[in-house]
Amino acid sequence: MHQISLETDIMGANEEAAAHNRESFDRAGVAVVNFMSAPGAGKTSLLEKTIEALKGEMRIGVIEGDLMTTIDADRIAALGVPAHQITTGSVCHLDAKMVHNSLHNLDIKGLDLLIIENVGNLVCPAEFNLGEDLRVMVYSTVEGAEKPKKYPVMFHMTDAVVLNKIDLLPYSGVSFEELHDNVRDVNPDAPLFPVSCRTGEGIDEWIAWFRTRIGEIRRKADAAAA
Amino acid sequence: MHQISLETDIMGANEEAAAHNRESFDRAGVAVVNFMSAPGAGKTSLLEKTIEALKGEMRIGVIEGDLMTTIDADRIAALGVPAHQITTGSVCHLDAKMVHNSLHNLDIKGLDLLIIENVGNLVCPAEFNLGEDLRVMVYSTVEGAEKPKKYPVMFHMTDAVVLNKIDLLPYSGVSFEELHDNVRDVNPDAPLFPVSCRTGEGIDEWIAWFRTRIGEIRRKADAAAA
Repeated sequence: MHQISLETDIMGANEEAAAHNRESFDRAGVAVVNFMSAPGAGKTSLLEKTIEALKGEMRIGVIEGDLMTTIDADRIAALGVPAHQITTGSVCHLDAKMVHNSLHNLDIKGLDLLIIENVGNLVCPAEFNLGEDLRVMVYSTVEGAEKPKKYPVMFHMTDAVVLNKIDLLPYSGVSFEELHDNVRDVNPDAPLFPVSCRTGEGIDEWIAWFRTRIGEIRRKADAAAA
Repeated sequence: MHQISLETDIMGANEEAAAHNRESFDRAGVAVVNFMSAPGAGKTSLLEKTIEALKGEMRIGVIEGDLMTTIDADRIAALGVPAHQITTGSVCHLDAKMVHNSLHNLDIKGLDLLIIENVGNLVCPAEFNLGEDLRVMVYSTVEGAEKPKKYPVMFHMTDAVVLNKIDLLPYSGVSFEELHDNVRDVNPDAPLFPVSCRTGEGIDEWIAWFRTRIGEIRRKADAAAA
């Protein structure tokens, strides 16, 4: 009972901070996307491909969540876009307050797109609303086909699933059909993008969809502000 | 400040429960091993190989941690050893109290070895002592070489690291030397076992070490009880 009320407090406080973030994002007219995955599924590699493709046509900034290191923020900064690191220490997810605090260090007013790379974890990040417009999940296909059954909240809450490392599938013993069906059981509607960040396969289809969605979000925001 | 004292309370309560588990394990004369990894690294596959190899020479029981499903517990039970499922719901790790409660459903008095398969997560499981004798981490090599830098607590706290999916390494672009050096930077002493649960490569070396360690733990426990 004590645990339940404690959890309610944490989640209530997070929802308040997320609403506050939402107002800041609206005022800045920036589209915000939260990228989530298990450790080593390829979030940063996907972001590198995505930023390279889109940085000529929109102003992008990145918030990187990591327990300890700036490895990912350094990779992103090397692409010439502003990147701010949130070091979570022992915390296994980003929460809305952490994102709020990072906005003091990253000027979002000049941005069209803010990308948030969450901590590598399939459990808690799904439960913390950051005030984002869009959630994208990266699923490394070589993690095996049953992940959507085992982590249903994450798969259910996402707006798109990028199925990475498909170049390794022929050597992995994982059935793509089974994996695909398991995602669909938990999330019947989200678009799925089979890609290999390593070989580049499927990246164009992902970029085309992502570009369109960001455009839609920004037009809707502009209409609301007008 | 509030968060810090709360965390201290949780960790203090967990240490108490872990000490209680430790007494139960000692009374039962059972060696207890906590297996941890990221989602899809191959913990259950490694346990299948390990149990198949050892079930003729020791009495094994398994506690399976999973958010929702009994997929892993069913795989283990199919090997003919007792398996008890802890369903954590939205909790991203096992704690000592959950393990304590599961001992009401799994009779450890008749066991030589109790295996605990933790929730797939590289963050929080490392921080919760369950009262175990030994920690083993499974690191899927295709997650990339930098995981020990990004999740140092998990890599530092383990007694052995099983480097799984080495059959995929030639196709993955991951440098085994870099990965190996990164593990060694965080944990200079733990034995490392490159294996493929899929092809069987390296499994014999892992089993030989594990059998010896379990024997040592049980002899030490018997001597202490005498």
